[in-house]
Amino acid sequence: MSKIVLQLPALDPSQIELRTKSAYPPPYDKVTKGRVKRPLTDALGLTQFGVNITEIAPGSASSLRHWHTHEDEFIYVISGNPTLSTSEGDQQLSPGMTAGFPAGKENGHRLVNNTGETVVVLEVGTRSDLDECIYPDVRLRCRPGRYKAPEFVKIDDENEI
Amino acid sequence: MSKIVLQLPALDPSQIELRTKSAYPPPYDKVTKGRVKRPLTDALGLTQFGVNITEIAPGSASSLRHWHTHEDEFIYVISGNPTLSTSEGDQQLSPGMTAGFPAGKENGHRLVNNTGETVVVLEVGTRSDLDECIYPDVRLRCRPGRYKAPEFVKIDDENEI
Repeated sequence: MSKIVLQLPALDPSQIELRTKSAYPPPYDKVTKGRVKRPLTDALGLTQFGVNITEIAPGSASSLRHWHTHEDEFIYVISGNPTLSTSEGDQQLSPGMTAGFPAGKENGHRLVNNTGETVVVLEVGTRSDLDECIYPDVRLRCRPGRYKAPEFVKIDDENEI
Repeated sequence: MSKIVLQLPALDPSQIELRTKSAYPPPYDKVTKGRVKRPLTDALGLTQFGVNITEIAPGSASSLRHWHTHEDEFIYVISGNPTLSTSEGDQQLSPGMTAGFPAGKENGHRLVNNTGETVVVLEVGTRSDLDECIYPDVRLRCRPGRYKAPEFVKIDDENEI
């Protein structure tokens, strides 16, 4: 039986090309080597929040630990057992589990795959032109401006959060 | 082994009480009898978009066919085979499939469970105080105002969309 191709507004995520590149400046781009995303947002015509289906290979991570000044974030674990790492410590998640990160909450977070199996998560985040993203472990911040190349700046004493 | 209870920002959706009631005025409340939701938004502290895990029993539906004036919507099929019904016809979805409904797009949509197995979907929608929801099949509209009781009004010739 031939596979039926879905028509919009429905979408089969496997039809979306994998995005493999990282926006992080070296050497931080290595952190997400092994993480790939299927960005669904534009294909679905959405603009108010973004949706990715993200795969994290064994030993890789979703991102540097970070928090957003103006964007809520949400993740749903589709498969695998990622470790959620926050300021408060680590928790291992399992398929069907969720997590939410309210805008402005200064609790850096990321998912790390410490297992031998690929992790797949659905991730949702508001899109705000005001948003800054803060990376406390490496003292970087990413300036607002969704539609230009990301601008990472070092946080120093004169540039506190 | 005792089950580890997740701590925020992580959340096990099974910890959230099922919401069974419908906001629709009679007789339309019967449409969603058999649909139950686990609302995750408040529990996760999110405010910019809402997230539910919704179960649709055989013979039930997610909602009346509707579209939103100011809110993007997204669904991800966790399990089961819902029929996505829109102005353009029906498509059967399967686990892992998605759909997106941009704000203001006048294409009424809903999921119907025509199978013998429960359907489970993750649904995400922006939260906007400006939003009106339009139900073209029954010519109803729901007025803006997320934090008050829903106000449904009939669409007549003097009250066109």
